[in-house]
Amino acid sequence: MARGAQRRSGRPRTALLDRDRIGAAALALVDQTGDFTLPELAQQLGVRTASLYHHVDGRAGVIELLRAKVKDEMDVTTLDDPSWQVAIGGFFRSYRAAFAAHPRVVPLLATTTVRSPEVIAAYDKMVVHLTDNGIPLERVMTILTALESFAIGSALDLAAPEVMWEIPEGVDAPRLAEALRGQHDARGRAEQAFERGLDQLLAGIAEEIEARRED
Amino acid sequence: MARGAQRRSGRPRTALLDRDRIGAAALALVDQTGDFTLPELAQQLGVRTASLYHHVDGRAGVIELLRAKVKDEMDVTTLDDPSWQVAIGGFFRSYRAAFAAHPRVVPLLATTTVRSPEVIAAYDKMVVHLTDNGIPLERVMTILTALESFAIGSALDLAAPEVMWEIPEGVDAPRLAEALRGQHDARGRAEQAFERGLDQLLAGIAEEIEARRED
Repeated sequence: MARGAQRRSGRPRTALLDRDRIGAAALALVDQTGDFTLPELAQQLGVRTASLYHHVDGRAGVIELLRAKVKDEMDVTTLDDPSWQVAIGGFFRSYRAAFAAHPRVVPLLATTTVRSPEVIAAYDKMVVHLTDNGIPLERVMTILTALESFAIGSALDLAAPEVMWEIPEGVDAPRLAEALRGQHDARGRAEQAFERGLDQLLAGIAEEIEARRED
Repeated sequence: MARGAQRRSGRPRTALLDRDRIGAAALALVDQTGDFTLPELAQQLGVRTASLYHHVDGRAGVIELLRAKVKDEMDVTTLDDPSWQVAIGGFFRSYRAAFAAHPRVVPLLATTTVRSPEVIAAYDKMVVHLTDNGIPLERVMTILTALESFAIGSALDLAAPEVMWEIPEGVDAPRLAEALRGQHDARGRAEQAFERGLDQLLAGIAEEIEARRED
């Protein structure tokens, strides 16, 4: 009787375990603590660590679920726009917004190999945009990497506190103090910095496309 | 006798506790686990948690020590160069290299207010470079933020694995596959992407300086 009751209370939780639930629990854990272990994740989900292995390929597999989860929060519809600027600019705007909501996921994703099919599909479309516009294959990943680095760094900046700088008493930094007084509010600064930088990086690509067309 | 021995073995450890040792232990902990707590840090240092408070102002204080530690690994000598391009370009190259060695520190620093005197002194010098060259005060923090976001994102890219992309069997991404085959090695790609992006952002600043000179 007691064993039956135990099994009944255990069964639905195990039955509900799937990749989506594992990804959501991992994301919540990383948002909160900056990392995860498989035992911690199993505990959160109310299952044994061994059960996780029926669904994911260990830690690397969970990191790919995290990547797919963040990707789910992006709007990738602009990638189908005929204009490469609209497609790529829109993708990286959305990319930045999604990572800004999960800053602590960033270093985990940045230091592991990308295998998520959804992310790979998005990059494939961007490669098509750039090569169709004359960018040589061997240049494409360099260009996308620069945009990605900028978007990731800007996402972290968007997660910054309202007051990013505070000059302590006794520290002499008169010009920085003036610049801080003169700046827009923190959110406005982050937005302007991102849009400005994105424009410059896209303008650099446009120049390269133009120059190759003239060759 | 036993108590005396205890005190003797305890004393040097307490006497050696200083901000530098706390910062180094916190950096090692974050490099390894992605985060720290004050009790964990105290345990690493072999002291009581309360002892930490004699040296730092809680968690925020430790984060500022982390910031100063990473800053110690940067070469800030270019900031005194008369050319703003050499000064600012050199600073962000060094900034990226220092953070690339400590990618897991990035989100902790990016989401807390900067109070470290050494970091503030470096930014004060950059504000002087830009304003002396005619950039208006209210634009300066936007410009420096864009450069910083790019350098931070590029640092994370430098910490990326040798194989950043792996298209799983059954996933169709022919153009990305071609682009990956055509690219330079991963380290080469990261270097090229950073130098390319930094050049474009610095060129944008140069254009703004030029345009304002002509006004």
